[in-house]
Amino acid sequence: MEIGLDMMGGDYAPVEAVRGVKLFLDSQTSGVRLTLIGDLKQLSSLLQGSGIDSSRYTVIPSTEVIEMQEHPTRAMKEKPGSSISIGFQLLQQNKIEAFISAGNTGAMMVGSLFTIKSIPGIHRPTISTLIPKEQGRRGLLLDVGINADCKPENLLQFAILGSLYAKHILKVDKPRVALLNIGEEEGKGNLLTQAAYPLLKNCPQIHFTGNIEGRDIFIDKADVMVCEGFTGNIVLKMAESFYEITQKRQIKDEYLAEFNFEQYGGTPVLGVEKPVIIGHGISKGLAFCRMIELACRIIDNRLLDRIRESFLEQTR
Amino acid sequence: MEIGLDMMGGDYAPVEAVRGVKLFLDSQTSGVRLTLIGDLKQLSSLLQGSGIDSSRYTVIPSTEVIEMQEHPTRAMKEKPGSSISIGFQLLQQNKIEAFISAGNTGAMMVGSLFTIKSIPGIHRPTISTLIPKEQGRRGLLLDVGINADCKPENLLQFAILGSLYAKHILKVDKPRVALLNIGEEEGKGNLLTQAAYPLLKNCPQIHFTGNIEGRDIFIDKADVMVCEGFTGNIVLKMAESFYEITQKRQIKDEYLAEFNFEQYGGTPVLGVEKPVIIGHGISKGLAFCRMIELACRIIDNRLLDRIRESFLEQTR
Repeated sequence: MEIGLDMMGGDYAPVEAVRGVKLFLDSQTSGVRLTLIGDLKQLSSLLQGSGIDSSRYTVIPSTEVIEMQEHPTRAMKEKPGSSISIGFQLLQQNKIEAFISAGNTGAMMVGSLFTIKSIPGIHRPTISTLIPKEQGRRGLLLDVGINADCKPENLLQFAILGSLYAKHILKVDKPRVALLNIGEEEGKGNLLTQAAYPLLKNCPQIHFTGNIEGRDIFIDKADVMVCEGFTGNIVLKMAESFYEITQKRQIKDEYLAEFNFEQYGGTPVLGVEKPVIIGHGISKGLAFCRMIELACRIIDNRLLDRIRESFLEQTR
Repeated sequence: MEIGLDMMGGDYAPVEAVRGVKLFLDSQTSGVRLTLIGDLKQLSSLLQGSGIDSSRYTVIPSTEVIEMQEHPTRAMKEKPGSSISIGFQLLQQNKIEAFISAGNTGAMMVGSLFTIKSIPGIHRPTISTLIPKEQGRRGLLLDVGINADCKPENLLQFAILGSLYAKHILKVDKPRVALLNIGEEEGKGNLLTQAAYPLLKNCPQIHFTGNIEGRDIFIDKADVMVCEGFTGNIVLKMAESFYEITQKRQIKDEYLAEFNFEQYGGTPVLGVEKPVIIGHGISKGLAFCRMIELACRIIDNRLLDRIRESFLEQTR
C-alpha cells in the first residue's frame, strides 16, 4: 500500500508533517509505504534528523506551494509544480493509492473534482466531520461546507455516503441516519428539509430515524447527521469555537476534551473515485498520523468499491 | 402603562408566572399595572397567598389553555377562550399595551401576524435571541426559527429591525451588523448570503461590518448577527445544549453561566404593530419578570414608533 502525503500543507508544515510520518511508521510494521511530496531541501534535513527508516518512504520533490489564502482554481492551474498538484497527478496515475493534505481546502476540492472526478451517479461529493457525543460515541455530520446550496437529492446522497462511511470505517452496525432540522415531526423545516425527508424515509439503503434538532447534535441520537453545507459549516465552526473557549478558560472536562478536532485527523472527500483526505490547517503531528491511518482504513475496507456498488444500484 | 401577561403559558405556569409578577412588582414602584390572564380559581388562590398588592393588577379569566403541542392556527380558531386568544384580543382593543406569554410559540406567532399584523413595509416579522460574548457584551441573533426560508430582502429587514432593537433597547451606540456566513470575504456563502451581502452593504440605515463565521458567534465582533431562521434556530438550540452539557457536567464558569437563557427572559416579535413577547416554555419566575421589564422598556423607548418611522422611509 502506497499513501501520498503533502508535506507542505498546513500551518505547521513540514515540521509537523514529518512528526506525523514518524508517529505513523513507529506505530505499525505492516507493508504501508509513504510517498512524501515537498521541498527536497527542507525534507531531507528534517527526515535525516528524525530517525525514520528511509526504506519506508520515497520523497517526490515539489517546487511550489499553494498558500492557504490563494484562489483554488487559479492556483491549481498556475502551480503545476506545487505539492498538491503533484499529489493529484500521482493519484491519477495510480502511483499512490490515497492522497492526504492539510493545505488549501479549495485546491484539494478542485483536485478531487476535476483531476480525480466523482463516482458515476454521485452529483455532489461531500466532506464531513466527526462530532463527539456525550454518551461516548461519535456522530458523522455532513456536508460541512463544500455544498452551500443543495437539492433534496444531494442530501439523500450525503445520507448514503455517510451511512457507508459509518458502517465500513467507523464500524457502526446499521448506522442511524437523521436529518438536521428545526422541529422533530415530518413536515417541519425549510423547503429543502421538507422535500428531503420523504426521500430519506423511502430510501432502502439507509436506516433513517427522522429529524434531529440543534439541541440533539451532541446527543447520541444518530450516527449520521445530514444537512447542507451552509448549516454544517456553521455547526462545525461553532463547535470548534466552543472547544477553544473551554481551553482558554482552562476548563478541564473529559467530554469537552473530545472536542479537540485535531485527534480526528482529517475528513475524506466522499464521493470521488479515489481516497482523498483533507486536514485542518492547524494540523500537528498527531493529526497527520491519524490521516494516514484513516487512508489505510479506507483502502483496507474497500470503501470506494462499496460506494461504487451502492451508486451503481441507484443508477440502474 | 398596562402590560398583559398570559398566566397559563409555559411548563411551570401558573405558579412561576405568579412568582414573576411578584418579583417584578416588588422591584419597582412606577405606574406599571398588569393584566393577568388565566384560570380564575387557580390564580385567585395563588395571588392571595403571594402578598402582592391587588391594586397593581387585574385578573381577566380565561377558560381554556392552548397546549404546547397543539397546532397553532387550529388552536387559535377553536379556543377563543384561551389565555393566548384573549391576550391578543385585549392587545388589539388597546386594553393592554403589550402582551407576554411563555405558551405555544406557534400560537403566539399566529396571533402576532393575524390579529396584530405586520408594520407596513415589513414583509416578515422576526424573533431573535441574545448570545453572550466572551468579552462581556451580548449580541442579537436573528431570525431564530420563524422564517425558515428567506429572500435576501428579508435578511436586510432583519438587519434593520435588529439594529433598531440593539440601539434603542440594548442601548448599543451604532450597532455593528454582520451577516452570518461561511467564509469572511464578500462573495462567499450560499446563494442567499451572496445576494444579501450587497443589500446590507448599501443600506444607509445600518452599520454593516461584513460576514462573520460560525467561530465568531461567541466573539464580540458584531452586535447584530443576521441569518435565515433555519440556521438561526440550529445555532440557538446548539448554544442552549452547550449550556445544558456544562450544567450536567457541573462545570462552574462565569462566562458559561451566561448561557443560561432564562435570564434573558423572552424574545419580542419584531416587525408587528404592537409589543408581543414570547417566552421559553421552561420559563420560571425570573424569566417572567425579565419579560415584563422588557415590555416596559420597549414601550418607554417607543421602539414600535421608531420601527414604523424607519420602514416608512424605506417604503417612500
